[in-house]
Amino acid sequence: MSNLKSEHIPRATIQRLAIYVQVLESLRNDNVEVISSEHLARICDVNPSQIRKDLAYFGEFGVRGVGYYVQDLNSSIKKALGVDRTWNCALVGVGNLGRAILRHKVFKQRGFHIAGAFDCDPFKIGEVVSGLEVICSRRLPEKVKELNIEIGVITTPPERAQRAANYLVDANIKGIITFAPTRINVPDHITVEYVDFFHHFFNVAFNITLKDRED
Amino acid sequence: MSNLKSEHIPRATIQRLAIYVQVLESLRNDNVEVISSEHLARICDVNPSQIRKDLAYFGEFGVRGVGYYVQDLNSSIKKALGVDRTWNCALVGVGNLGRAILRHKVFKQRGFHIAGAFDCDPFKIGEVVSGLEVICSRRLPEKVKELNIEIGVITTPPERAQRAANYLVDANIKGIITFAPTRINVPDHITVEYVDFFHHFFNVAFNITLKDRED
Repeated sequence: MSNLKSEHIPRATIQRLAIYVQVLESLRNDNVEVISSEHLARICDVNPSQIRKDLAYFGEFGVRGVGYYVQDLNSSIKKALGVDRTWNCALVGVGNLGRAILRHKVFKQRGFHIAGAFDCDPFKIGEVVSGLEVICSRRLPEKVKELNIEIGVITTPPERAQRAANYLVDANIKGIITFAPTRINVPDHITVEYVDFFHHFFNVAFNITLKDRED
Repeated sequence: MSNLKSEHIPRATIQRLAIYVQVLESLRNDNVEVISSEHLARICDVNPSQIRKDLAYFGEFGVRGVGYYVQDLNSSIKKALGVDRTWNCALVGVGNLGRAILRHKVFKQRGFHIAGAFDCDPFKIGEVVSGLEVICSRRLPEKVKELNIEIGVITTPPERAQRAANYLVDANIKGIITFAPTRINVPDHITVEYVDFFHHFFNVAFNITLKDRED
């Protein structure tokens, strides 16, 4: 890769880069062409020196006295992270959360196209959710190949997450994002990301508690 | 607070503490009484020295040569964070994601009780979702007081998130967790947390991209 200074980008940086992409895309939609690091920092709720440090991974992007070119910066971040293209995903577990994700337009907008929806429940198989027919999870190996799927998304209840992961591993998936509140075991070469909302709830509760203790 | 060494706990630590609580609670359900920091670290996918550092905020918890007492450690973390009690929440925006959250049992298990569901859509008002009658968002100030609600959860589409935030601010809410993919403006004394799944998708995509580039 030409424009990425270092191949190792820390997880916390990727977390902020995802925020910058969100904010830069909404600026671009508002036809903003240039933004100062101070202004970008304020919108993203990050300090300006942190933003400059994060963006240094991508070479020299800031223009002194001007700021960042919104479109260029956004494209460069996305290219470096490999999210300048579409990734086909398989969603396993068509419950409430699975349905919410299938219907959420923003996944496709951000390049994550859910190409197949899978469930073990015979009452769900064959149902059409958001234009996708729910397929039996046992057919994952065949469908992953056919639909060129690389990423699995687990939205099952916790007690079924490991079985869903096993199906995905057997189907030669390359990475997994799981929303189930439990840990799963997969071979080392497969990247697993655990989505957990609770630290946000904990952080809000903690901040309120601190303020109440001060009063 | 007696058992908290420092009032300032960094956000990244709180993120890991939420994981420890999840893992400790599932260990407790499996009747595990003691766990070594190495074992806990392995389950949580964090290195052991990081765990020891994080837990140092709570005083001396490890017992040399034994490990941590699962129940005591879990209680202490929850007490220090202020999540050893129930927090009443108001959910604003009864769409797909809102419904998924209302039906998700884990919120109540973790102490976040969604006591009221609100929406502006006249077609949704009066509908019962997961035992809660959907109430007009304009009635938030009255209901927040009546139901002793301290936290607001925004699950509206992005273009309605600011209005939802305004209702919550007018209702004297103390903290907000927003799932809408947009930034909101609220007075400084109100803690806001942005839930964003995309960094997980970005991280998986980035890791696969790195591996593919190596091949």
